[in-house]
Amino acid sequence: MTVQSARLGRLGGNVFREEIDAFYVSALSNIRYLTGFTGSAGHLLVEPGRTTLFVDGRYDEQAREQASGVEVRVSPTDPFDVLLNEVRNRRLFRVGVERNRLSLAAYERLRDVRKKIRQLEGAVEGLRAVKSAEEIDRLRKSALLNSEVFESVVGRLRPTWSETRLAGELEFEMRRRGAEGASFPSIVASGTHGARPHAAPRPIKLQRNSLVVVDHGAILDGYASDMTRMISLGRPSSDHLALVDAVREAQQSAIDSVRAGVACSTVDRAARKVLKEKGLDRYFVHSTGHGLGLEIHEAPRIANTVSTRLKAGMVITIEPGVYLEGIGGVRIEDVVVVGTDGCEPLTPTSRELRIL
Amino acid sequence: MTVQSARLGRLGGNVFREEIDAFYVSALSNIRYLTGFTGSAGHLLVEPGRTTLFVDGRYDEQAREQASGVEVRVSPTDPFDVLLNEVRNRRLFRVGVERNRLSLAAYERLRDVRKKIRQLEGAVEGLRAVKSAEEIDRLRKSALLNSEVFESVVGRLRPTWSETRLAGELEFEMRRRGAEGASFPSIVASGTHGARPHAAPRPIKLQRNSLVVVDHGAILDGYASDMTRMISLGRPSSDHLALVDAVREAQQSAIDSVRAGVACSTVDRAARKVLKEKGLDRYFVHSTGHGLGLEIHEAPRIANTVSTRLKAGMVITIEPGVYLEGIGGVRIEDVVVVGTDGCEPLTPTSRELRIL
Repeated sequence: MTVQSARLGRLGGNVFREEIDAFYVSALSNIRYLTGFTGSAGHLLVEPGRTTLFVDGRYDEQAREQASGVEVRVSPTDPFDVLLNEVRNRRLFRVGVERNRLSLAAYERLRDVRKKIRQLEGAVEGLRAVKSAEEIDRLRKSALLNSEVFESVVGRLRPTWSETRLAGELEFEMRRRGAEGASFPSIVASGTHGARPHAAPRPIKLQRNSLVVVDHGAILDGYASDMTRMISLGRPSSDHLALVDAVREAQQSAIDSVRAGVACSTVDRAARKVLKEKGLDRYFVHSTGHGLGLEIHEAPRIANTVSTRLKAGMVITIEPGVYLEGIGGVRIEDVVVVGTDGCEPLTPTSRELRIL
Repeated sequence: MTVQSARLGRLGGNVFREEIDAFYVSALSNIRYLTGFTGSAGHLLVEPGRTTLFVDGRYDEQAREQASGVEVRVSPTDPFDVLLNEVRNRRLFRVGVERNRLSLAAYERLRDVRKKIRQLEGAVEGLRAVKSAEEIDRLRKSALLNSEVFESVVGRLRPTWSETRLAGELEFEMRRRGAEGASFPSIVASGTHGARPHAAPRPIKLQRNSLVVVDHGAILDGYASDMTRMISLGRPSSDHLALVDAVREAQQSAIDSVRAGVACSTVDRAARKVLKEKGLDRYFVHSTGHGLGLEIHEAPRIANTVSTRLKAGMVITIEPGVYLEGIGGVRIEDVVVVGTDGCEPLTPTSRELRIL
């Protein structure tokens, strides 16, 4: 039995408890998880005892090779039309769909064919949230590669580089070391731009005497990594040092709180509490972390509104930050595996501020 | 009046002819087009005479700077909840949505608030399909940079490189020349892998005595480029040369057919007809091209099922290809601007097969 057919079996065990004849998987990352198919377009129909992947002519050979355990239907026209036809022909009256992953347009086209549509939430994402040993191994290798990329590039970083140059060097080094690419557009934010948590790198020189937020991740063998480290160009001021220390302490407190059975909100609050004690909590404008795997953002979200409890085998980021308009920002981020008794960090890189 | 406010005005002129009080823009690329905001999360509500951008805390500073012409609402929690509240508070009873760009889940949340939802299709995409002179200028610069990247990397390409190395060099060179990044994952497919139109580069050496499909694009100043060229490693066989010639002829025929007023299907058929005469049309498994701009795939699709007529100022790719399982593939792709009397190619690179 392949990994994929076991996953399809687990999915079936969940979704066919609902009153449905078939489950339509529209999210490509979910299709990849369930079949191995990595194309940029496709549709999956899961029935009890039968799974069909619908693709267009571009993915004929690739789909048959990658999704070897399932039936592959290739069409010269829109494969979604073929899927709709099959829903009719196979007399699948009650169809389950992915509420968060389906476009309104596709939903309406399905409704033209079948009135009984059951909207399911997170059916595949729930399975994906808990990683297998093999997936954890891939996530570890991805984190390791990403850390090596950081050390290698920071080792030759010159203060004359632009933000975009630094981002480009990081992404090239990922490729050079065998990654498929970056898991998200790399963030390099120096000076006051650091106050933007998702700053796009600019084609200007790294700002002197400022903190630089460097946030990057790779995709290796399909699996994402994600790490944020702080660099100081020039000797950091005591204010800068205090900010970095505060965020490091907040991050450590959150990491210390991670174990199976703990609510995501508890982990978020552990970070927030430390920053509150230092009067910095109002500058912490995002949540503490997120799951990652085939996608850079997966379940669970580590936020103070999320009561979901962590399970052993979940892999999450812990990344508190503070952002002060006109001054700059600090974020420190690691990936950890949730265990029954604590967590295992996958990011080996030192969290110390790098002074250049 | 800014470019963005003119666009918002044109949008309003279209959508408020429908019976709606507000139009909810969910697609990020459409939000960018209408406001200048480049963040990775946000929601836009367009009312007659009032436009509001809803973002989370990560985008506070950035949204206010970039979307200076519109009202910005920042919230610590899900900004979509704030938008729904405003729909209620502002007594917006009839709301238009983007049918192709809205998730079923968001649609259902909106339906919990308002029963009268009008599904519109392509309201913003229709505006975006016809480019302004300034946009064409950016697309030209993006195509030019992308072509320079190709020449620079092919000039130092060694036959010992792997497919991933070549892809990585192309993407690094884009960055080095000032691009924000790649507009899609670069395709490098040598040997029989060329039979997969969307092949992912492999960490193996470029295959000797084979054709290599190289398909890459950059994003420069927000705008995408896209080009495919063929390389032969070693002296090409007469069969390989015949395939390349056939595709070049098909591409030229399609380019010659492009002018305002011509149906997209006509352009597609011009390419298909040439390949049919050579018995190769069944190996041409995708459509002839697509619009591009802020996104790598935009309206119109150049396919034989699309009766839409081209308009002056549309910018499209022309990229026929043939894919022979067990043998390899050939694709040649350029970007052209539709004119009233023909078209202007933006891709300066020679279409000749490069022999290394």
